[in-house]
Amino acid sequence: MSEGFALIASALASIAKGFHARGWVIGTSGNLSAVVDREPLRLAMSPSGVDKGELSADQILMIDEHARVLSEHQAKPSDESPVHIRIVKERRAAAVFHTHSIWNNILSDVHAPDGGLAIEGYEMLKGLDGVKTHAHREWVPIIENSQDMPALAETIGDILTQHPQAHAFLLRRHGLYAWGNDLGQARRHVEILEFLLETVGRRSSMKGSV
Amino acid sequence: MSEGFALIASALASIAKGFHARGWVIGTSGNLSAVVDREPLRLAMSPSGVDKGELSADQILMIDEHARVLSEHQAKPSDESPVHIRIVKERRAAAVFHTHSIWNNILSDVHAPDGGLAIEGYEMLKGLDGVKTHAHREWVPIIENSQDMPALAETIGDILTQHPQAHAFLLRRHGLYAWGNDLGQARRHVEILEFLLETVGRRSSMKGSV
Amino acid sequence: MSEGFALIASALASIAKGFHARGWVIGTSGNLSAVVDREPLRLAMSPSGVDKGELSADQILMIDEHARVLSEHQAKPSDESPVHIRIVKERRAAAVFHTHSIWNNILSDVHAPDGGLAIEGYEMLKGLDGVKTHAHREWVPIIENSQDMPALAETIGDILTQHPQAHAFLLRRHGLYAWGNDLGQARRHVEILEFLLETVGRRSSMKGSV
Amino acid sequence: MSEGFALIASALASIAKGFHARGWVIGTSGNLSAVVDREPLRLAMSPSGVDKGELSADQILMIDEHARVLSEHQAKPSDESPVHIRIVKERRAAAVFHTHSIWNNILSDVHAPDGGLAIEGYEMLKGLDGVKTHAHREWVPIIENSQDMPALAETIGDILTQHPQAHAFLLRRHGLYAWGNDLGQARRHVEILEFLLETVGRRSSMKGSV
Repeated sequence: MSEGFALIASALASIAKGFHARGWVIGTSGNLSAVVDREPLRLAMSPSGVDKGELSADQILMIDEHARVLSEHQAKPSDESPVHIRIVKERRAAAVFHTHSIWNNILSDVHAPDGGLAIEGYEMLKGLDGVKTHAHREWVPIIENSQDMPALAETIGDILTQHPQAHAFLLRRHGLYAWGNDLGQARRHVEILEFLLETVGRRSSMKGSV
Repeated sequence: MSEGFALIASALASIAKGFHARGWVIGTSGNLSAVVDREPLRLAMSPSGVDKGELSADQILMIDEHARVLSEHQAKPSDESPVHIRIVKERRAAAVFHTHSIWNNILSDVHAPDGGLAIEGYEMLKGLDGVKTHAHREWVPIIENSQDMPALAETIGDILTQHPQAHAFLLRRHGLYAWGNDLGQARRHVEILEFLLETVGRRSSMKGSV
Repeated sequence: MSEGFALIASALASIAKGFHARGWVIGTSGNLSAVVDREPLRLAMSPSGVDKGELSADQILMIDEHARVLSEHQAKPSDESPVHIRIVKERRAAAVFHTHSIWNNILSDVHAPDGGLAIEGYEMLKGLDGVKTHAHREWVPIIENSQDMPALAETIGDILTQHPQAHAFLLRRHGLYAWGNDLGQARRHVEILEFLLETVGRRSSMKGSV
Repeated sequence: MSEGFALIASALASIAKGFHARGWVIGTSGNLSAVVDREPLRLAMSPSGVDKGELSADQILMIDEHARVLSEHQAKPSDESPVHIRIVKERRAAAVFHTHSIWNNILSDVHAPDGGLAIEGYEMLKGLDGVKTHAHREWVPIIENSQDMPALAETIGDILTQHPQAHAFLLRRHGLYAWGNDLGQARRHVEILEFLLETVGRRSSMKGSV
């Protein structure tokens, strides 16, 4: 493995530990990827079925654009690798993170009948790439969950095309996908969206809510 | 003590500390066991009346199938040892963990009149042994609490027979029992079920809940 | 200072840090004491106005039964020292801990019109000294808050006499007092009561609540 | 940089880490400042666009009363520097901290139509500078959020004049500003106000709330 890959793998393991401490990648849930090379595509990807609180850098796989493992590992890449690859291509993202939190599960279900969730008027939105004012209206699309990963990747591709400004999307009763132009931005986008989903969820139970 | 026992005892103490940090084995509540040998049955078991946040490996007892202490300890094994032994036999579990969380207490009470709680449609369910799709419906039986441990172990035996697919059960206003084919899987099952119970509990207070 | 005092002071500082991490002694709130000698009474007591997350063992004062400082410190003892002294005498407690948590503040206010709060039917109650069954009914008296410490100590004395079985009491919109026969038991009583207050508080917002 | 500045910068980085652990300065949100000299004004200020969980002492800038950077840094100071400078001048504060928590976002929105929020009757209020009794009524003004920082600083100046006793204010759907006569008091004010906002928010969903 190259030195660049080793650094990326180490960063992914560290981010996974941070997410685990906040309860966002409990059990074997969640997965993380980051681009090593674009042409041809080389992706650092978390393996399938591993506890994210115990993920170590040397467990991170290198895969190609068909989710085939190129590194010397016996492990399989995450089943959701096609989703990561799709996001990397559609958004030219450098890193893609997927979390299962209590609040993203709840909000993805409550707002599923509307096809998505609008988050508007919060200063915290300014932490999202390109957002300059709290008046910004972020539409977070919600997609029905599926175990057919190639089909799900297609649906996600369509949603990304329809919502070119979206910084993230939710899979219903499943979790959040967010990404960024580098590892730090992708992690920041997850933190910000988890914060906003919990805020919106708790706010909706209070008086004066709309 | 054998080297195998020492390793298991050390793992149990470490898992207890992790559960304590999440608030699932507050005070002296909760208990943990793991199989050392099956024939004859030898179980590593947490002692009675010890703060789980301070449990050390050398406090872990070795007991037989009648919950008699075989190791050189003055301490008594957990009063709930017969429940652990029953689960180990009925499910051929390698580890059994019992937690008292705020949300498992609440849900065990709210759904007690129905005899159990169905959790369905969450991706997180796929972390349970043998579950392949989020469409899975997990039935978590709820059993009335009792201080008569042998009688409770019998009731639990009946419930396990009636619900051969169940990965866990709740004791009303008491806590969760979950188990697994190895220590990691048992811990994962606890994490997943605690996550799902909190999600279902919070979800039920939101609009559009069913 | 004697070696015994140094050990107790060190234990109090460590317990304060643990409570701070859980959000129970935020800012300078909360205080802790432990008996060093009974005849004449010598009490290790946390100083007034110190952040409990940063409390060190050498800041712990030694006071007598009139809350006069006997150790070589410039600091004043906690204003609530008379309350600690009263509890030590009435209950022959070896340690007294006082926490300000979000849930003990809420419950102390919601149930103030009833003069107290009953907690019944939870297995976790068995962690309280002398409680043998979850069927136990724990009455937690609630006392109106006051800045007149000697008068408050008198009222508390009366309440302790009227409720000889109580393991703790609440001051309205102020906090919890709990105690024990040793430092470990007092800490355990705080953990258990904070757990139960949060459980009862969250439970009351759910369907089927009584 | 002077030794005094280095100590202040180190303290700010440490406080930022503590706030991050509690979820109050997620992503790049929040900012912190402390007075180095008053005449002419020299302020230690967190830089713009940095993750507060990773803020290091050597990233802290020194700025003057026009928010111009005096230290050898390429980074820009926080966009909200004019707000910090205004508070330092109006209140003679030694430190100013700004947090974005879930509960301060919610409460700032729920109570915005009233122009502020009264917190009254809680013992925890006594941790605020100069407050001697729980009967104290703290009025926390709420100001509409804006991206026009100089204008916002003017509005804040007016509010501070109108409410000379206020220890803090909220920006709607944005966050909390609190300050103190030294670093420890400013941090304590944040902790206490975050505690009280969460308590008031959760309390309002319970029975018997007014």
